[in-house]
Amino acid sequence: MSSSSSIDQPNVITCKAMVAWEAGKDLVMEEVEVSPPQPLEIRVKVICTSLCRTDITAWESQAIFPRIFGHEASGIVESVGEGVTEFVKGDHVLTVFTGECKTCKHCESKKSNMCQVLGLERRGVMHSDQGTRFSVKGKPVYHYCAVSSFSEYTVVHSGCAVKVSPQAPLDKICLLSCGVAAGLGAAWNVADISKGSIVVIFGLGTVGLAVAQGAKLRGASQIIGVDINPEKYEKAKCFGVTDFLNPNEYNEPIQQVIKRISGGGTDYSFECIGNTGMVTTALQSCCDGWGLTVTLGVPKTNPEIASHYSAFLSGKTLKGSLFGGWKPKSDLPSLVNKYINRDIQVDEFITHNLPFEDINKAFTLMREGKCLRCVIHMPN
Amino acid sequence: MSSSSSIDQPNVITCKAMVAWEAGKDLVMEEVEVSPPQPLEIRVKVICTSLCRTDITAWESQAIFPRIFGHEASGIVESVGEGVTEFVKGDHVLTVFTGECKTCKHCESKKSNMCQVLGLERRGVMHSDQGTRFSVKGKPVYHYCAVSSFSEYTVVHSGCAVKVSPQAPLDKICLLSCGVAAGLGAAWNVADISKGSIVVIFGLGTVGLAVAQGAKLRGASQIIGVDINPEKYEKAKCFGVTDFLNPNEYNEPIQQVIKRISGGGTDYSFECIGNTGMVTTALQSCCDGWGLTVTLGVPKTNPEIASHYSAFLSGKTLKGSLFGGWKPKSDLPSLVNKYINRDIQVDEFITHNLPFEDINKAFTLMREGKCLRCVIHMPN
Ligand SMILES: [Zn+2]
Ligand SMILES: [Zn+2]
Ligand SMILES: [Zn+2]
Ligand SMILES: [Zn+2]
Repeated sequence: MSSSSSIDQPNVITCKAMVAWEAGKDLVMEEVEVSPPQPLEIRVKVICTSLCRTDITAWESQAIFPRIFGHEASGIVESVGEGVTEFVKGDHVLTVFTGECKTCKHCESKKSNMCQVLGLERRGVMHSDQGTRFSVKGKPVYHYCAVSSFSEYTVVHSGCAVKVSPQAPLDKICLLSCGVAAGLGAAWNVADISKGSIVVIFGLGTVGLAVAQGAKLRGASQIIGVDINPEKYEKAKCFGVTDFLNPNEYNEPIQQVIKRISGGGTDYSFECIGNTGMVTTALQSCCDGWGLTVTLGVPKTNPEIASHYSAFLSGKTLKGSLFGGWKPKSDLPSLVNKYINRDIQVDEFITHNLPFEDINKAFTLMREGKCLRCVIHMPN
Repeated sequence: MSSSSSIDQPNVITCKAMVAWEAGKDLVMEEVEVSPPQPLEIRVKVICTSLCRTDITAWESQAIFPRIFGHEASGIVESVGEGVTEFVKGDHVLTVFTGECKTCKHCESKKSNMCQVLGLERRGVMHSDQGTRFSVKGKPVYHYCAVSSFSEYTVVHSGCAVKVSPQAPLDKICLLSCGVAAGLGAAWNVADISKGSIVVIFGLGTVGLAVAQGAKLRGASQIIGVDINPEKYEKAKCFGVTDFLNPNEYNEPIQQVIKRISGGGTDYSFECIGNTGMVTTALQSCCDGWGLTVTLGVPKTNPEIASHYSAFLSGKTLKGSLFGGWKPKSDLPSLVNKYINRDIQVDEFITHNLPFEDINKAFTLMREGKCLRCVIHMPN
């Protein structure tokens, strides 16, 4: 042990962050103070962060402010807290909104990624002490989804970051931190799509198109994409969508059209909009006997899913998942390697690149349905 | 070909049947005329028929009268229609409310028992000509569920009967024609319960207790039975239920109790009541990550299942099935053999035996929750 260890102790960092002060109001660039990482935490210099629909939903509707949003991100470890052995300064990481402690019943099971210790964290404080690591002029600023990547530096639990290959470009693989991975995982882990099958996807945003890519790579014979925005069709084709349906162009319920063109209903249906009413439509679109509906969206309103029992009597299944069923630490590194080996497409989801100070433009683009992923590049 | 074939042509049979003339009114014993079997049909001398909850639900709520109910039955082939090669006079059969044509897409798939040709038949007429084979004083009497076993003789499509071993006692195995098979199949085929798992069953009628038996035979470590009738506990123990919960004895929601005694939620939950609200409770009772809820009941009212999307976000699955996922012709003969070999219990479900003329007593017993299965014995 070197006596210089006390000199290496990380200090408070002052840096720029985009702070949300009120629901639905533009983020404001502020000087924030970022505490050193506490035991089992790491401090990360964020390199790129992409905007995910969930950031917007939370910013529009939640009550905890001031807050630093952002959860789909890549970065480089700046310092590590006591007890952290998995990371060293300089490691390339993806942040994850749902952690993996590796020791709880769910982390030990092959059937679940719902870590009971570091699972879905939405309360805005750190796991260890229920405190925050950010402040503006002495006032605490809340975290979001255990990540808070709309800041040059952030502190996360070491269980909520994943070390990845330094070969992978951080301005691309940030997308594997949430949306693209969630869609691929839904197709592969949750639905386990088999070759030759017929798939329908409701909502052709990033998650829906990642499902399409996953279905295509599994050899699905027909991939039907449903969206009310006809501008999405060109992009959808590039991810494997074979049939595009705009419900506004039909005088009959879209599930009837889907049943007709799929010869009686699809093998799989995916709800990627976050509309619980559409879950019912998705159930009605898949076939009797083995039809499987996977729900991926987080609804903005009406959280109740209603479905007629006869859908289930006829043998259908409704299944959900978090983060496409991936265990982040166990599974993301190999997903990143798939990207490096060009086995999966990621770049094609990036429709915009913006500097950090223009993050509010990214919010506008996404709310207007004009982008798939905007990658926000941090300064330097 | 013998010239005597015209002499062997089956004629109209006049026999006794219990006819439902109005919804919810006592059945009336009538002399009915039963037509000869048409092409691909068989006429069956019913030996025993047991009363199933679905008969009562339909008799209380449906609009097609006069009608002969009954669908859980055993019998002996009396005559066969043109083109029937699978059966001969004297064969022992179980009737089935959902058929197996052996040629449609679903019959050919290993993943479905939802025959598209002879599937769930509730319209009250025969498949081939949309006519009836029963009449009373010249007035047609409708069928029920493709079976209509509350008659000394009935006509069914040859795809809706299964030849079984003549060694098996017909007064017992009639229960494998619907309820007991449905419960065992839900545990084995639909949920595929694994050894050491924790199961909760809502509703300890015949179907629920057959699920319990299936779970026990798969080596479940804890089988929680939920019912508001404490009289059911003794019987439940005999089928493997380890913990009995009466929701009326708790001041907290029963799903909380279940989560507590199962260490965070069960691996499987089964809704066997036919109460869509209870499906929500069943979903809430099973664990995050891999919790599976199987819905078996046919609801009497409110056919909409409502569930909060967060149940699915946390990785739960809701799955239904018809007839426990069994393909009747392919699977029932071996289930009957399991009974002959004492691998499964059936006799224990029979709480009452009644002569045909007392069938209205069976209706009363079941409506009052005083029986599991009443076996109705036909004359001779
Ligand atoms: Zn996200
Ligand atoms: Zn864990
Ligand atoms: Zn039945
Ligand atoms: Zn069929």
